[in-house]
Amino acid sequence: MEELFNSSKLLKHWPSILLGLLLALTFKYIKEYRRKRSKNVKLAGEEDIAVDFPLEDPDALQPALEEKPHVPFVQGENLNPDGARRFYELARGRRSVRAFNAERKPPINIIEDCIRAAGTAPSGAHTEPWTFCVVQQLAVKQAVRQLVEQEEHINYSTRMHAQWVTDLRPLQTNAIKPYLSDAPYLILIFKQTYGTTAQGRKKLHYYHEISTSIACGVLLCALQAAGLSSLVTTPLNCGPALRRLLERPANEKLLILLAVGYAAEDCKVPDLQRKCLQDIMVKY
Amino acid sequence: MEELFNSSKLLKHWPSILLGLLLALTFKYIKEYRRKRSKNVKLAGEEDIAVDFPLEDPDALQPALEEKPHVPFVQGENLNPDGARRFYELARGRRSVRAFNAERKPPINIIEDCIRAAGTAPSGAHTEPWTFCVVQQLAVKQAVRQLVEQEEHINYSTRMHAQWVTDLRPLQTNAIKPYLSDAPYLILIFKQTYGTTAQGRKKLHYYHEISTSIACGVLLCALQAAGLSSLVTTPLNCGPALRRLLERPANEKLLILLAVGYAAEDCKVPDLQRKCLQDIMVKY
Repeated sequence: MEELFNSSKLLKHWPSILLGLLLALTFKYIKEYRRKRSKNVKLAGEEDIAVDFPLEDPDALQPALEEKPHVPFVQGENLNPDGARRFYELARGRRSVRAFNAERKPPINIIEDCIRAAGTAPSGAHTEPWTFCVVQQLAVKQAVRQLVEQEEHINYSTRMHAQWVTDLRPLQTNAIKPYLSDAPYLILIFKQTYGTTAQGRKKLHYYHEISTSIACGVLLCALQAAGLSSLVTTPLNCGPALRRLLERPANEKLLILLAVGYAAEDCKVPDLQRKCLQDIMVKY
Repeated sequence: MEELFNSSKLLKHWPSILLGLLLALTFKYIKEYRRKRSKNVKLAGEEDIAVDFPLEDPDALQPALEEKPHVPFVQGENLNPDGARRFYELARGRRSVRAFNAERKPPINIIEDCIRAAGTAPSGAHTEPWTFCVVQQLAVKQAVRQLVEQEEHINYSTRMHAQWVTDLRPLQTNAIKPYLSDAPYLILIFKQTYGTTAQGRKKLHYYHEISTSIACGVLLCALQAAGLSSLVTTPLNCGPALRRLLERPANEKLLILLAVGYAAEDCKVPDLQRKCLQDIMVKY
């Protein structure tokens, strides 16, 4: 080492090497600074979604939806009289259920109507960026369960930090998931990160995660209206394997896995309270 | 410069300086490599949410919820007979509306019942990570409108790329938003990225965005059940300013801005079709 440092070549050129290194560092610093600055200029806050899509040829720009004259709005149905109160009475009865009646299977047309309802959700620029995969075959449910339990063992032991595991203790969850094979239906909700127009062009899906989650909210209401119980899960790290299992394309990412059916006779649920109105609502 | 380089002190210590710089760069490289590698090991796929929370003292770990024995599940209400079909008939009538009747204001108790319903949504580890800010004062609505329109002018002209603006053309939207002052209510839905336990400790909110979006889906159903119309918006880059306007704390981030009320008499809506069931549902 000492020999290397003292070699004449290095000795002769050390100022250049040092200068080069300093310049490289300075350049890197300026680049980083400009990157951060340009981000600040574009998006004033930390709270927004940075959107960065590849631009197509501006002359060839076409909207994904057809441009048609707007039509008069027709008021839909409601639950009047007292629609809001009646809907609240319906919604408040929903509980996440982890024990399902494996013998009692609701007819598929009920599930279909619930998914039809979910499909009425609003979405960014009406892109409808969702796919509902309904699993009823026992073998497929078992394959889903095996994949999820395998990852959940790693999640609980390694991936989830101690506070997370502690916070789940009152819910008495663990890596064993009988509901994934007991529930008569699993609904795997995929968000489509992009799509394809009728003309075969790439269709950009704005706010696909928020849109698909809203559709999931509508689906939960529909299931409740049908007298069915459900469990919303977001199986950590299982998305890619479940996507391959169900042979979904690469633009679809698993967002939520729902178990759906009738609650088991002896089903118990956590003794939870919900926040009261004044804790979730502020008036201006 | 030359003088500086040739000064005896620098000359004497140049191998140390060079070595130091090289070591610093190597260290930085290794750190970056390990960070990337640990991410890969932890999460096998690109589709999952990386979770990286600070760990508290493991001995002091307490769940955010109280640990209580579970209780028997009681089946809630439903819309039977034909609950799923009846709910679909309700949900399919919802349309996003951009022209509101500024004279006709639903009573606040209806809005409250709708938000009560939204508050029944499931959430990660029952964290209920949402705040619904209901704006009815004209001055506040006008301030919201001004802020949003100011940003939307920049969004349409600069931040949104050409394809995005083109995709919005069939919806006939632009940076002018009369509905923000016409609608009798604006509901600004904030997700809470973290919270506080009853003991004053930091409470981690898992999947706050998905949970709050699901609650928004329930809210939309409640509004429809009450015979009200709404518009879901995600005003790009307006979150921080609106949060400050409403004096919400830093752990709350704006997710969705809803305009709520009765549709204007002459309200028109885009002539849109929804995807049919076989385009959104796959059976296994």
